[in-house]
Amino acid sequence: MRARVLVRPKEGILDPQGEAVERALPALGFEGVSDVRIGRMVELEIDDPAQLEEISGKLLANPLVEDFEVQLLDEPAQ
Amino acid sequence: MRARVLVRPKEGILDPQGEAVERALPALGFEGVSDVRIGRMVELEIDDPAQLEEISGKLLANPLVEDFEVQLLDEPAQ
Repeated sequence: MRARVLVRPKEGILDPQGEAVERALPALGFEGVSDVRIGRMVELEIDDPAQLEEISGKLLANPLVEDFEVQLLDEPAQ
Repeated sequence: MRARVLVRPKEGILDPQGEAVERALPALGFEGVSDVRIGRMVELEIDDPAQLEEISGKLLANPLVEDFEVQLLDEPAQ
């Protein structure tokens, strides 16, 4: 089945990419954006979704500084 | 409101990060994973969600090689 893993910096961990985006927005004319956090998204096909937690913690995220969230996606209509 | 933008490589565009993850999995004992694609996830607070499409196309994604998807997230309970 298709699944998605969202990986984001833990709360309190510095996110320089997010800060850079937040600082760039007003210069492009966009106001009213705050608390920008940038992480990774991994999408994959997996036979056994029960493995996803372990795969995420071992290979996709660094649990010291990142949290992850597993989402199971609906199969596309055949 | 809180919003999330998912940025992924367009279909047909090479994704070396995804290929590296896919190749690493069997060595860690995980079989049955395929079609791994790695993108970015941006989460932010925005006053005017109508700006999100333009912000995503101008600053968060490179429309030449990436697609993006905007998700509006529920406000957390106060």
